[in-house]
Amino acid sequence: MSTHHPEAAPAGAEKATDPARQEGARAIEWRDGRLYLLDQRLLPGEERWLEIGDSGGAAEAIRELAVRGAPAIGITAAYAVVLAAGGRYREDADGWRDAIEEDLHALASARPTAVNLFWALDRMRRLFPDLHGDPVPALAREAERIHAEDVAANHRIGEFGAELFTGSGAVITHCNTGSLATGGYGTALGVIRSAHARGMVTEVFACETRPWLQGARLTAWELQREGIPCRLITDSAAAALMRAGGVERVITGADRVAANGDVVNKIGTYALAVAARHHGIPFDVAAPVSTIDPNVASGAEIPIEERDPSEVLGYAGHPVAPEGTRAWNPVFDLTPSELVEALITERGVARPPDEDSIHALLEAGNGAG
Amino acid sequence: MSTHHPEAAPAGAEKATDPARQEGARAIEWRDGRLYLLDQRLLPGEERWLEIGDSGGAAEAIRELAVRGAPAIGITAAYAVVLAAGGRYREDADGWRDAIEEDLHALASARPTAVNLFWALDRMRRLFPDLHGDPVPALAREAERIHAEDVAANHRIGEFGAELFTGSGAVITHCNTGSLATGGYGTALGVIRSAHARGMVTEVFACETRPWLQGARLTAWELQREGIPCRLITDSAAAALMRAGGVERVITGADRVAANGDVVNKIGTYALAVAARHHGIPFDVAAPVSTIDPNVASGAEIPIEERDPSEVLGYAGHPVAPEGTRAWNPVFDLTPSELVEALITERGVARPPDEDSIHALLEAGNGAG
Repeated sequence: MSTHHPEAAPAGAEKATDPARQEGARAIEWRDGRLYLLDQRLLPGEERWLEIGDSGGAAEAIRELAVRGAPAIGITAAYAVVLAAGGRYREDADGWRDAIEEDLHALASARPTAVNLFWALDRMRRLFPDLHGDPVPALAREAERIHAEDVAANHRIGEFGAELFTGSGAVITHCNTGSLATGGYGTALGVIRSAHARGMVTEVFACETRPWLQGARLTAWELQREGIPCRLITDSAAAALMRAGGVERVITGADRVAANGDVVNKIGTYALAVAARHHGIPFDVAAPVSTIDPNVASGAEIPIEERDPSEVLGYAGHPVAPEGTRAWNPVFDLTPSELVEALITERGVARPPDEDSIHALLEAGNGAG
Repeated sequence: MSTHHPEAAPAGAEKATDPARQEGARAIEWRDGRLYLLDQRLLPGEERWLEIGDSGGAAEAIRELAVRGAPAIGITAAYAVVLAAGGRYREDADGWRDAIEEDLHALASARPTAVNLFWALDRMRRLFPDLHGDPVPALAREAERIHAEDVAANHRIGEFGAELFTGSGAVITHCNTGSLATGGYGTALGVIRSAHARGMVTEVFACETRPWLQGARLTAWELQREGIPCRLITDSAAAALMRAGGVERVITGADRVAANGDVVNKIGTYALAVAARHHGIPFDVAAPVSTIDPNVASGAEIPIEERDPSEVLGYAGHPVAPEGTRAWNPVFDLTPSELVEALITERGVARPPDEDSIHALLEAGNGAG
């Protein structure tokens, strides 16, 4: 993948750096057969766009966290399939369906936890049998549809979530679940946007989210652009904040939801859910239905990615622990469904989330489709 | 205060950089009428000693976190009184008792939460009426006694705490409570040292302890020097670790304990206590009796220091959040006594800690003294 500086940004990327109050800053653009990703590793210091020309570059961007957030990873993977199909078709117009399997495998291997990645690859692959000639136009339309559907889903998630607010107050959130983590608008941050628009959110407390600091770097950046009051806290201060009072709800996203409602999300989510339960504060999870994995009965079956200890031992190349220190660096944790008050999706709210309510959400889609 | 590089370290400081396995690295030395502090802001990158010649320098070192940890702050304050008395006596041999009040006030104002600071100042002040001529020799003996008593107390805390272990396993600890935070050996880390020596601690999980990263910079450094197995975790991973199993106990220190057993300690302690309770894992607090403040009935009366938001907005001196981001940065939090399994002191264990058991500990001292 190559890098685009802001001055060389693609025409369509222009609006992504424009503080669009309704959508938030987009981080994924498809333009003239190429994929552009706002490099989230460099935010908030620098807004640099990566130009992705092949699926290998997309896999690298996913693996190296240039793009992150379960829905955004899924959308990126969908566009990557377009790039892969174009490349393989140009090499061998008859054999591209076989050759592309290697690319799909590489994409699927980029990160193990977020199910949206596999979901998007499967949905794109389902079109292959019916394609004739150049597969790119039809696949590009499907990827753009996935992207647009995600944005629309997030708006519905926002509305459903905002309806859960019974009083106005502060909200705690974790990691980044905004427009940067999705196709646009956001999941948990979409709920917060919608609830704030209704006057139900007085202030957002954003957990900084170690070790990658998505809360500090990305959520604070998004909320500041939109003028939603926000204060950053260390992850470990959230429980003390709940005890201090005034916190109306805790809302996070999800990287994968099991059929029984168990939630796998960014490390630290479970600690928030435990503390919220201790204080009698509702803990909600906002995610599109594509984040639900009906193939895993419970969260225990979901692989938890562990990344390099160096991420905990320092930040951005600045070591803080003594040389030779070891670290345990799980990227996600598992929150059992019993601790989740509501799972907010674009098809409605599973409350409480359990096998029956999750099944109903999935069936609602099959019926509508 | 001036700085001493390792090559210019005082004679007595030599042993402080020697990995003394029984005591840990000392961070406070009194030599030839001057105070030397190992600057903990620079660890683990650099071992530099500050030479403190007057009580103003000591107050600055406390305020700016060159020395930290409730017991270490108390010991530093005791030596600072010696420096203050010497300076005031040289200025005015008759009026030093009046003039020193300004110095004592500045020391007491350096940090608001740790009660050991006020305790040490009070204990030193009690000698004033009986001093004749140069007050320095008698005051220096008292400060050295406070220092030695703290080390001895920590060894007893370690033994009492180790006896609480019913099985061998991993331990989670927070912040730094080792030889660096005390006169030597440590409180919670002293318990871990003693329990490890008995074969009851298989591994220490050290929370990195945002925002100052004492766990990463200091606890990992101490444990590595002593060969006690240690892995660093982000603060928010502790709950997931408890859920994963194998954690025998959670042990922290305290900055102030109320008469009813409520504990004020480093931000994040409360989150650990809540998570430990949720998982049925014992949560212990180790602290000398000087950390108990009989003058506050409950933790609600203890002032919680809030420091500059910039500490949360950056990481190890490197800004990470967008300019203009706000933050909430309480340095401590309150853990109600109901969540504490045992308060481990040098006079024995309050289990559970409550008004009666705390009162008994305080009375035991009065009887013995």
